[in-house]
Amino acid sequence: MRPNLHWKPDRASSAGLARQVVEHLKGKIARGEWTAGTKIPPQRALAEALGVNRSTIVAALDELTSLGLLEGNRGGGTRVVNTTWGLLTASAPPKWNEYVASGLYESNLHIVQRINQPPPGLIRLGSGELAPSLLPQEQTRRLFERLAERPVPLGYEEPLGNLHLREKLSEWLRVRGVEASPSSILIVSGAIQALQLISLSLLRKGDAVLTETPSYLNSLQVFQSAGMRLRGLPIVNGGLQAEAVAASQRQLKAALLYTNPTFHNPTGATLDARGREALLRVCERERLPVVEDDVYRELWLDAPPPPPIKSMDRQGTVLYLGSLSKTLSPGLRIGWVVGPEPVVGRLADVKMQTDYGASSLSQWAAAEWIGGGLYDKHVATVRGELRGRREEMLSLLREHLSGLASWTVPEGGFYIWLTLAPDVAVDAGRLFDDALRRGVLLNPGFLYDRGDARSLRLSYAYASTEELDRGVRTLRDLLRGR
Amino acid sequence: MRPNLHWKPDRASSAGLARQVVEHLKGKIARGEWTAGTKIPPQRALAEALGVNRSTIVAALDELTSLGLLEGNRGGGTRVVNTTWGLLTASAPPKWNEYVASGLYESNLHIVQRINQPPPGLIRLGSGELAPSLLPQEQTRRLFERLAERPVPLGYEEPLGNLHLREKLSEWLRVRGVEASPSSILIVSGAIQALQLISLSLLRKGDAVLTETPSYLNSLQVFQSAGMRLRGLPIVNGGLQAEAVAASQRQLKAALLYTNPTFHNPTGATLDARGREALLRVCERERLPVVEDDVYRELWLDAPPPPPIKSMDRQGTVLYLGSLSKTLSPGLRIGWVVGPEPVVGRLADVKMQTDYGASSLSQWAAAEWIGGGLYDKHVATVRGELRGRREEMLSLLREHLSGLASWTVPEGGFYIWLTLAPDVAVDAGRLFDDALRRGVLLNPGFLYDRGDARSLRLSYAYASTEELDRGVRTLRDLLRGR
Ligand SMILES: Cc1ncc(COP(=O)(O)O)c(C=O)c1O
Ligand SMILES: Cc1ncc(COP(=O)(O)O)c(C=O)c1O
Repeated sequence: MRPNLHWKPDRASSAGLARQVVEHLKGKIARGEWTAGTKIPPQRALAEALGVNRSTIVAALDELTSLGLLEGNRGGGTRVVNTTWGLLTASAPPKWNEYVASGLYESNLHIVQRINQPPPGLIRLGSGELAPSLLPQEQTRRLFERLAERPVPLGYEEPLGNLHLREKLSEWLRVRGVEASPSSILIVSGAIQALQLISLSLLRKGDAVLTETPSYLNSLQVFQSAGMRLRGLPIVNGGLQAEAVAASQRQLKAALLYTNPTFHNPTGATLDARGREALLRVCERERLPVVEDDVYRELWLDAPPPPPIKSMDRQGTVLYLGSLSKTLSPGLRIGWVVGPEPVVGRLADVKMQTDYGASSLSQWAAAEWIGGGLYDKHVATVRGELRGRREEMLSLLREHLSGLASWTVPEGGFYIWLTLAPDVAVDAGRLFDDALRRGVLLNPGFLYDRGDARSLRLSYAYASTEELDRGVRTLRDLLRGR
Repeated sequence: MRPNLHWKPDRASSAGLARQVVEHLKGKIARGEWTAGTKIPPQRALAEALGVNRSTIVAALDELTSLGLLEGNRGGGTRVVNTTWGLLTASAPPKWNEYVASGLYESNLHIVQRINQPPPGLIRLGSGELAPSLLPQEQTRRLFERLAERPVPLGYEEPLGNLHLREKLSEWLRVRGVEASPSSILIVSGAIQALQLISLSLLRKGDAVLTETPSYLNSLQVFQSAGMRLRGLPIVNGGLQAEAVAASQRQLKAALLYTNPTFHNPTGATLDARGREALLRVCERERLPVVEDDVYRELWLDAPPPPPIKSMDRQGTVLYLGSLSKTLSPGLRIGWVVGPEPVVGRLADVKMQTDYGASSLSQWAAAEWIGGGLYDKHVATVRGELRGRREEMLSLLREHLSGLASWTVPEGGFYIWLTLAPDVAVDAGRLFDDALRRGVLLNPGFLYDRGDARSLRLSYAYASTEELDRGVRTLRDLLRGR
């Protein structure tokens, strides 16, 4: 178990630190937050989480052990053996350890959990989000002021999502070449939820899904948990090659193709217009549905990218995904799926079973952003900022990592895909651990391609300029074996 | 397919209505929103959705048929046979019909879909939500004004949810007898999501789940879709009887007990303190985890209900669910789960895979409501309103349905469980259809207990006084066979 403690002992209190820790942990055990049988976090992790010395933890655990509340080899793992109230009920708690290991869904990889919840203070050199300073604090405040003058949507929304938002989105998408009635748009709680809904609603256990290698999909357990087999094809000339898809589809009979053709996560690659058209035609011929994940489209840095594959789709072959997470606010949790009505209706029905729709507040804010043109204005600002950050990052890489690695040069989005030079001795797993010890959080390439131990996903979107500098220097030192 | 059309022809336009409908539907087909093979909605439904006469629809469909875009027996089902662009690509779209019928998750029952998306203008006599007039519009507006002065959380939140909200909830729960550290609380997008997460994260296909009959759980597909077997036990003296649970558990070896012991959905029943204690002790003895769904607790009308089962839990046997949906705003989509840390951590991990956390905006508003005492004040007002509505409803039932039905008298929450008198000829299915035709939407009892064709769930929370009156009179007429 990883500790998830926000409580800290009171240093001003007359009670000693160890005493306070003992009382706190006794409370957790007494309340059943740490049930009998629970393996408690390692001493080092506890010390870190509570902000005390390891010796304080040792003293506290010793006392809890002598009280009969803990037991076990402290090096390997200490377990809760009884509760202060156990004597009253004289029975053991449910076998939670077994429950936690059950369930259709696999756990996220440890490393993904770590990346999802980074301890404060780390330099995040691969995070797929905008830096807090790029999020539109001030405009959002003004938006709220305006919203406060109007009725707030507090009730349940329609299964497809707030109609006003879908109407605004329909107009906004038209400008991007995607013609979609509001009735063919489903609002989701972020694009990731669309992927979950697709896997729970449209696919069968054992179905194959074609995608890029490396792919964002590989860092998710959603498809694997639902029993899908992911089959990756290489990225050539910016994306999936139509002929390669056709060839693989003839053997594989995949149920779906997932692609992220614009400013690809994690490589930054973009498929050109001709490649898009060829890909669509093959998928049409093979009757292979396409999920086009287009969450980075707005973040072009040099020139607008080729129109979405969806813009060429006249048959309803493509399910098109978008989101506000990468451009405006991940916390809003607003994304969308465009597709044939019966498909979108099916996804909406399962969404109702899942969470009864996205937050009405978020939908309302999203409609305000998108409807008024405010969103496009904000994104233009973000593009300017990202442009500067990309240059900064590329010049740092040239300065410090020439000869040690090679990397892609993205035309938009967040990511640079870095591949270690053949003569560099460390692999990405070691690098992750070593960098973490020096305060730098990396996104190793094997999260996106299991077979790749020699790559990293870098991002210029999150860390500050100063952090980028320190981060890249740390990387250099590690690659040089220092 | 049910139509989900918000577009309406322009009556002021010089183009005839049928002409406009033809162009609109041609567009949907051309864009792949209605793919080839799609069965289009029935004429009556189309006419209703588009607000035109059936004859207009007939004319429009005739034209589309003669254009080769539709085909088929109009009585049975008309299908899209080709797309305007089909000739260009000379291939058929993906077999969406088969996809839509796949997926782990079953569709909601048609009747549930209907209830989830009621056409405007119906009297909703069983809806499980507060009337729009009871939602705190004005206070929410003021809240936003205040929020606009402070930094808005726009980034991703922690896996367990916003810490400030969890801290406020921890204090608020303490007053209700539930001691929970912030680290043992997970914020979810409504209590329904907690049920989904539990079924995807902790249970195995084929596991049995014990619950009440009737139960809210039966109206959900979540547990069934994940392969759980629901086993219901009758409600006696306000809830599940400990001995009955013990007896069933010896045979069944269920993995979980789900209970809604306070102002039960759909019967309104409440288990007393002694019954709660007995139930917990049995579950402890059987090591049977309990999910205590307590979303109606605050809505007591006569006296505060007995403390939660969770308040007696010292071992971590109980997962405790709450929500703001029934008291404040269903649209916020904010609920919580309290339980042992490893369990809550596992649910959080799967939540990250599902939607990356609840809306930060909603969490922030929730913290504001709960933290400042504003929420408790609001709920006190709602209680007053509901008290009046309950009296109103009960007096209508006495006046109009005496002899035709019997019903429960709830001490809180929203619901009255009505059972038809033995000599009443119609059953709940017929009643649902007939009432709908007269503009009244009912929640038939078989949604909550498959075997029960003689009951209805009534709610005094949603419809206006005047609607309650008309609704109950309609019911009376139908029960009398008029
Ligand atoms: C390609 C891609 N799709 C989807 C997502 C998820 O976005 P959201 O926050 O909208 O769920 C991400 C985020 O990392 C992404 O990179
Ligand atoms: C007993 C019970 N639990 C949970 C829910 C779902 O509530 P939420 O809106 O928080 O998902 C409902 C709503 O009908 C309910 O009646």
